[in-house]
Amino acid sequence: MSTPADVGVTGLAVMGRNLARNLARSGNTVAVHNRTPAKTRALVADFGDEGAFVPAESPQELVASLKRPRRLITMVKAGEATDAVIAEVAPLLEEGDIIVDGGNAHFADTRRRERQLRERGIRFVGAGISGGEEGALHGPSIMPGGSAEAYAALAPTLEGIAAEAADGSPCTAHVGTDGAGHFVKMVHNGIEYADMQLIGEAFHLLRDVAGYTPAQIADVFAAWNRGRLDSYLMEISAEVLTHTDAETGAPFVDVVADRAEQKGTGRWTVQTALELGVPVPGIAEAVFARSLSGHGELRAASAGLPGPHAEALDGDAAKRFADQVEQALYASKLASYAQGWHMLTAGAREYGWDLDLGAIAAIWRGGCIIRAAFLDRVRAAYAADPGLTTLLADAGFAQELGRAQGDWRSAVATATHHGVPVPGFAAALSYYDTLRAGRLPAALTQAQRDFFGAHTYRRSDREGVFHTRWGADRGEERAD
Amino acid sequence: MSTPADVGVTGLAVMGRNLARNLARSGNTVAVHNRTPAKTRALVADFGDEGAFVPAESPQELVASLKRPRRLITMVKAGEATDAVIAEVAPLLEEGDIIVDGGNAHFADTRRRERQLRERGIRFVGAGISGGEEGALHGPSIMPGGSAEAYAALAPTLEGIAAEAADGSPCTAHVGTDGAGHFVKMVHNGIEYADMQLIGEAFHLLRDVAGYTPAQIADVFAAWNRGRLDSYLMEISAEVLTHTDAETGAPFVDVVADRAEQKGTGRWTVQTALELGVPVPGIAEAVFARSLSGHGELRAASAGLPGPHAEALDGDAAKRFADQVEQALYASKLASYAQGWHMLTAGAREYGWDLDLGAIAAIWRGGCIIRAAFLDRVRAAYAADPGLTTLLADAGFAQELGRAQGDWRSAVATATHHGVPVPGFAAALSYYDTLRAGRLPAALTQAQRDFFGAHTYRRSDREGVFHTRWGADRGEERAD
Repeated sequence: MSTPADVGVTGLAVMGRNLARNLARSGNTVAVHNRTPAKTRALVADFGDEGAFVPAESPQELVASLKRPRRLITMVKAGEATDAVIAEVAPLLEEGDIIVDGGNAHFADTRRRERQLRERGIRFVGAGISGGEEGALHGPSIMPGGSAEAYAALAPTLEGIAAEAADGSPCTAHVGTDGAGHFVKMVHNGIEYADMQLIGEAFHLLRDVAGYTPAQIADVFAAWNRGRLDSYLMEISAEVLTHTDAETGAPFVDVVADRAEQKGTGRWTVQTALELGVPVPGIAEAVFARSLSGHGELRAASAGLPGPHAEALDGDAAKRFADQVEQALYASKLASYAQGWHMLTAGAREYGWDLDLGAIAAIWRGGCIIRAAFLDRVRAAYAADPGLTTLLADAGFAQELGRAQGDWRSAVATATHHGVPVPGFAAALSYYDTLRAGRLPAALTQAQRDFFGAHTYRRSDREGVFHTRWGADRGEERAD
Repeated sequence: MSTPADVGVTGLAVMGRNLARNLARSGNTVAVHNRTPAKTRALVADFGDEGAFVPAESPQELVASLKRPRRLITMVKAGEATDAVIAEVAPLLEEGDIIVDGGNAHFADTRRRERQLRERGIRFVGAGISGGEEGALHGPSIMPGGSAEAYAALAPTLEGIAAEAADGSPCTAHVGTDGAGHFVKMVHNGIEYADMQLIGEAFHLLRDVAGYTPAQIADVFAAWNRGRLDSYLMEISAEVLTHTDAETGAPFVDVVADRAEQKGTGRWTVQTALELGVPVPGIAEAVFARSLSGHGELRAASAGLPGPHAEALDGDAAKRFADQVEQALYASKLASYAQGWHMLTAGAREYGWDLDLGAIAAIWRGGCIIRAAFLDRVRAAYAADPGLTTLLADAGFAQELGRAQGDWRSAVATATHHGVPVPGFAAALSYYDTLRAGRLPAALTQAQRDFFGAHTYRRSDREGVFHTRWGADRGEERAD
């Protein structure tokens, strides 16, 4: 029998395979297993020289090959496949052993699994992993949830394979108990949806209003990527826009079908936000925009609807407009992040997690899809005031919003007149204007509700719950 | 023992009591029951002269008092209370008896209950009822789901108590099997949220941009209510805005606290839409706007954020702006209704309901909260083309959108420059512009997804699924 392995990985599709390689390259002896043994053999054949792998042909072999307490990472599909793996390996494990679920599980499932396994003495860690296949191989951002002592047993290993932030700290930390890791990963993905949508809108505006070519927009994005918008998504957007389709010679972005797909984590984010009573219009509009793009029949039926006649800008006007779009993109991004952090706050309260809001920003600085210099600003905002109610109110961000808001408004107004849809920019601006409004028309909404359904209202001048007898003498009565 | 009752009502809070009175006034002998018998006695004491009531002190007495097949309407709170009533009465019922749930149940619960009761030979009808307490008494809109023959046994009774549309037809019809009635009611409520939000935005704009007083806005709304925006919600908004607070002498709408509440059906609508993959930004923004208004801490923290300096319009400019707002309100309303009907279409497909999309508009013409002349237009649109993909594409509506879109854009742009949040108007316009766009930036989104996660893409020039080797030679390969 070979050396006992430090850690096991079951599920060797691209993410699992790359994570196993990352673990081996970092000096761990890694037991590897896949339902189809051919994948296990291929991994060892192709990458066996990268480190110490222990191939296992069965769950029994896998478990038997691990040092105790055993540390087994499952990298299978979220949902039934994860339950199936747990059902298979849990009976083989002993008290104190650890299962890490590195898949994209819904946090509610992780809460359930953690509870069930805890009753059997097995420690379950739901770890959100972001960074795609490249991240898994070279260093992802890892968001582990579970007990603090389970994390302690994993920390050296996880910190050894995670990405490093610019300051050298690892992009992983104990996030919170039970489902906290997958919850935080879900919010990460919601923010990712919003970021991608906002970049898409900036592209659309530069294309259709400023009249830029994809190559010119790539230059603009590359320039923005050297400033405060420096981020992985901005970087790869510029890369994509410089790419030419070999087959047609056309800009690559012009030959890709404009129907965005989604795997469901954005939808989960919005559904959970609704459950928690957290307004996340930026994330919701991003989910809806993807969904709308895919409704071909609806788009075909609407193709003839009238739009405005507006000419593309040119020269200096285009250049000035591009600057406005940068401000709009930055301010809208800030609003999305504020919504994401609001959700983290609300989730922590609802599920009893002691989330460190600054630490979450810190572990997203590297490795994950939304990695960006900006996240160090978010970390710093929470370091300066751990009780910050909203990111928008951080002094530095508020100042930037003050400088951005005029251009933000101009960009949205111009888009509106040109008929370019900006659901993300506009929703972010409405979020901003709603929050800073002295009075909202919600007063009329409450009055309507009292009128048609006797749902009562509160007054702004004194305590109590009231009802007006609308159908009778319109006198007011106490309803509490 | 008294005359056998035609129908029973259990749950005598305001909705149940008024429905029982409506039934009695329509000539039915109505058995009435409440968990607290005092309410039963009060109903008979206060309204016994309105018709024939048979008070029941226990579920046994209630069931025993009913003609067979028994028809029992439960009007208790959605959720556990409904399950408790069913658990209590079902064992007392016989094959062929009918339970009608007139509460605000989630359609998934109704599907479950219908299935469970069907196995026991009991017919279960989940009936959405809209119209508030006044509607329950004088004629609501009723949306019954269940088997066609269960509906047949209820039809004369329900049609006798429902509202009448302007053409004299009753505002009820068999909607579809199992949960269809409560699903349709949920969509109704989602549309109601959107309608209320849009009216609130119109109010906010007329107040802060046009500089009108509530009384002046009431006049504007009353004028709109004589045109194509004629609706119950517009009517009561004008009523609310004319009302003066007796205590302070101030406009009533100014003393109501501007924190809107919600009971959750709007949230269900959005969550279900996300499940079905139907984009409903208008409804979502309405839910978020209510929620945001209630986040006092967030609003307080954001109160100092910088806004624009824009003066209110006056004279003719204000008048012209008000006309633009009317166009924006109408066009945005159309977009919300298009989203609602898209959801009906998708729900019908997902759950196997044979929904008659025009008939649903017809039964909403009277009795319910969104009742409006407009709904006869929707009915007519589906009568003209039962396969209409989206309401926006109906010839008449498309023509109106063409006339409205310029003013719609101006209203949104002006709101944007004045710092007045218009999440509903702006989301509706983005929905419109997204659907009619020739190319969407979803192409960039797909390219990004392929870049960071190898999620593949399709091409617009030929069939197939593709992946570009971004990290290597950037060649393209087939991925299907």
